[in-house]
Amino acid sequence: MSLIVQKYGGSSVANTDLIKKVAKKIVSNYRSDNQMIVVVSAMGNTTDHLIGLMNEISSDPDPREVDMLLTTGEQVSIALLTMAVHALGCPAISLTGSQIEIKTDEKHNRAMIKEIDTSRILKELNQDKIIIVAGFQGINDNHDFTTLGRGGSDTTTVAISAAMEADRCEIYSDVDGIYTADPRTINSASKLNYISYEEMLELANLGANVLHPRAVELAKIYDVELYIASSFNKKRGTIVRGVEDMEGKKNIVGVTCDLEDIKITVEKVPDKPGIAGFLFSSLADKGVNVDMIIQNLQRDNLNDITFTIKKNNVNKAEKVLDDIKDELNFENLEIDTEVAKISIVGAGMKSTPGIAAQMFKILGENNINIEMITTSEIKISCLIERNMVDRALNILHKEFELDKIND
Amino acid sequence: MSLIVQKYGGSSVANTDLIKKVAKKIVSNYRSDNQMIVVVSAMGNTTDHLIGLMNEISSDPDPREVDMLLTTGEQVSIALLTMAVHALGCPAISLTGSQIEIKTDEKHNRAMIKEIDTSRILKELNQDKIIIVAGFQGINDNHDFTTLGRGGSDTTTVAISAAMEADRCEIYSDVDGIYTADPRTINSASKLNYISYEEMLELANLGANVLHPRAVELAKIYDVELYIASSFNKKRGTIVRGVEDMEGKKNIVGVTCDLEDIKITVEKVPDKPGIAGFLFSSLADKGVNVDMIIQNLQRDNLNDITFTIKKNNVNKAEKVLDDIKDELNFENLEIDTEVAKISIVGAGMKSTPGIAAQMFKILGENNINIEMITTSEIKISCLIERNMVDRALNILHKEFELDKIND
Repeated sequence: MSLIVQKYGGSSVANTDLIKKVAKKIVSNYRSDNQMIVVVSAMGNTTDHLIGLMNEISSDPDPREVDMLLTTGEQVSIALLTMAVHALGCPAISLTGSQIEIKTDEKHNRAMIKEIDTSRILKELNQDKIIIVAGFQGINDNHDFTTLGRGGSDTTTVAISAAMEADRCEIYSDVDGIYTADPRTINSASKLNYISYEEMLELANLGANVLHPRAVELAKIYDVELYIASSFNKKRGTIVRGVEDMEGKKNIVGVTCDLEDIKITVEKVPDKPGIAGFLFSSLADKGVNVDMIIQNLQRDNLNDITFTIKKNNVNKAEKVLDDIKDELNFENLEIDTEVAKISIVGAGMKSTPGIAAQMFKILGENNINIEMITTSEIKISCLIERNMVDRALNILHKEFELDKIND
Repeated sequence: MSLIVQKYGGSSVANTDLIKKVAKKIVSNYRSDNQMIVVVSAMGNTTDHLIGLMNEISSDPDPREVDMLLTTGEQVSIALLTMAVHALGCPAISLTGSQIEIKTDEKHNRAMIKEIDTSRILKELNQDKIIIVAGFQGINDNHDFTTLGRGGSDTTTVAISAAMEADRCEIYSDVDGIYTADPRTINSASKLNYISYEEMLELANLGANVLHPRAVELAKIYDVELYIASSFNKKRGTIVRGVEDMEGKKNIVGVTCDLEDIKITVEKVPDKPGIAGFLFSSLADKGVNVDMIIQNLQRDNLNDITFTIKKNNVNKAEKVLDDIKDELNFENLEIDTEVAKISIVGAGMKSTPGIAAQMFKILGENNINIEMITTSEIKISCLIERNMVDRALNILHKEFELDKIND
């Protein structure tokens, strides 16, 4: 008997017909002599509906009350899915984050799981029940409901798999696996049979919306092997696991883009020691994360400092820069929203020299200008003009032969 | 400083504009130096929507999962109302039944409140917060969510008023008080300034949908004076309180009808000792409550036994009668759904002889046939033909001068 933890995303339970289909799938696994724990997201557009109501009432709602509101979405899903499993004649019980005691820190809207109490789950499993768990939510020490932020149901799933030492952890959504690129942009994108945690993490952080980065981190820490597949078909999905298990290591496993970045240039800052440090620590103090940075010394000992931040931080950043205008003594501020970050990711690049050069060369040959660059051990990112994104992705996908990755 | 407990029904918070209006009302009370605890129902048709989804999935859902589903409705309301109060600049916090620990028994869908832990409420009140409480819900010893059944938010409100020893308990809905009859049927129905718990209880039990009977019972036990008024206007409402406080006792304070009853006649049952007892205990064993009963001895020692039950129990009752057909040895079964129960209610009838006679006489004079009768100390009910209901109500309302009750 195996213990299987499965997650079904919002599109997989978007209406009652789909909920019944998911119930069938769960019951079929259960009847094959498995113990089942199933984590569910809110139905389809429920969360958007709730956020719509909220926006009608307040432009700046209290994060605690936002969590009070949003946690209802998953609670509806688990109740309905449990009823659907019952209707197929199997014992099942729904449990919210507060009932299980998925204990989180105090940070509403983006809480981190501290601990999962497995006693209630174990009690119900021992009564041969299928456990249907509300994803995305937990409870803090004050008994207030918290949510784990975007993609939080993935995190719930991996955390429960780790806490329960599950034999399998399967994540079902409307996406049937991890691709070498977004199939909507690149026709020849191939599905990967395997990907390492590190590579998945880079892809997840870089804007591939399949799996939440925190879930991948957690999977890596607790060595939880993930299976990512579609709930709508039976196609083979993608296994996410430790790199030591990988069959054939490819240099590059994916190309991706992130359209959430914007570029800010602070022009003509006097070139004094510590001035850049002051700028970036001022931003960090207000919670503005800076990604790429370039400093260009201009004439007259004046510097241009260019950096990228997430689009949703632009107001905060402008305020910080306004507050420190006198200290920084800069002449002008340029904000460029028409940029995009494209990246190539692959654990193999650690041991293969020349990948970066190959990337820059092919982009250059195609007249795509690279404005900024960042790298990690297993990824290279370039900031380019936004209208060049699709072309750049196609060129890179072809250059690194990602269409032939399963050959 | 007074402690005021208010309840707003579903129609009072049916959309975000109404929620904002309710928030204004609460804040105005709070700013007049009152401590505020506000109990809220689910928004307008939320519960119906959830029940609709449920019916698409299961015709016989597990009561525990029904509660898991339905408790989300109030949770949405309290979050939104709290945000609306915040938007007006007042401190407020929402609390679910499980967070407060409104402890109930195990009976899902119709749980009874056993105990309310006031510590969380007190803690938040001491921080000058307005407390927004989810009505209708509690938690059992197993940490499962329970609901209190129809009108349960009224019960929550009275229970919290009692536990907190509130100075005032106000129930706001789309109904602006207690009337001598349903104003939709009787144009001349008058609003009562006062009504006793006992009278309210009879009216509530008899189908007047203003206030839940359990809430009235609780108010009576804990001597909580209720104020029933509209959230849509400022008209004077009705005070429900102990009879000893009543200003002028009227013989009759209201006429009402209940269309949920049906009449079953078991024809030609052999007249053996204990046969009626056997019939009614068989029904009771299956949870079918019997209201009125008549036994008519026919010729040949055969009895007709006639009784009324609630419409929604008819399938259960038929099954019971089928199961005991051999023991009962009856000849035929008649089910009459075209009946209605009309009632007159008033604490004054205890000390005023002749009220029943007056009721039967005026109905008779108007050719309205009385099929069955039940009475209590303060009400008289008659089963009549359903198509006579409106006429009967009007006749009784006029006969007992209820249009002149405030004169």
